[in-house]
Amino acid sequence: MRKIEHIGIAVKNLNESNKLFEKLFGSPAYKEEEVESEGVKTSFFMNGPNKIELLEATNTESPIAKFIEKKGEGIHHIAFDIENIYTEVERLKDEGFVILNETPKKGADNKLVVFLHPKTTNGVLIELCQEIAD
Amino acid sequence: MRKIEHIGIAVKNLNESNKLFEKLFGSPAYKEEEVESEGVKTSFFMNGPNKIELLEATNTESPIAKFIEKKGEGIHHIAFDIENIYTEVERLKDEGFVILNETPKKGADNKLVVFLHPKTTNGVLIELCQEIAD
Repeated sequence: MRKIEHIGIAVKNLNESNKLFEKLFGSPAYKEEEVESEGVKTSFFMNGPNKIELLEATNTESPIAKFIEKKGEGIHHIAFDIENIYTEVERLKDEGFVILNETPKKGADNKLVVFLHPKTTNGVLIELCQEIAD
Repeated sequence: MRKIEHIGIAVKNLNESNKLFEKLFGSPAYKEEEVESEGVKTSFFMNGPNKIELLEATNTESPIAKFIEKKGEGIHHIAFDIENIYTEVERLKDEGFVILNETPKKGADNKLVVFLHPKTTNGVLIELCQEIAD
């Protein structure tokens, strides 16, 4: 784990929250992207070596819709930048962490992603992500 | 805001969670520190340019005790590294953010800290922090 790649924040209205985070950071989102398989629209803000991802649900079955229903808007996950996601998944399994998807899947922002079950990480939803090579 | 300085995670038992996060990062906490004024014991893990702070309440009035009672263990706040916390507080006030403590206070890890009210930041508790010069 080389750094915090991004923090994911669940929001109800991406357009409204984009304006809010633009004021916070003093610069606008550098991209927006829909991830249909996850039922989310996302936007990304740069913050030095890190990013902030805002996530709005696009349907009621989206994990983000369920999160907001249960907990309200707020921090949804931390994503760590991983050099080799396959060996890291093996290492974490050996350490006793529960992996939600053992086969990395395509996430937003050109990444392969794996999630760890929050029950084994003090209630924190942790994403491992690795940039997909061109 | 130059980077994510750290992510704060509320935990019930610092010793147990230190073991867990040592497994996650593959290296132990580099320091532990009690902040009496906030009613917390903390530990810090390095992750490249970022840190993870674990927080355990030391009394029932601690903000961390109240957070865990309401929401359970999990991500408590995001802290951003600020070059000049005084001018940044003025800028954010002008942008309409509600500041919880306008006068920066001494936090953990040799920092001056200010919190923004989560009601003005999509439910996210945001800490601004500036290293105290020697």
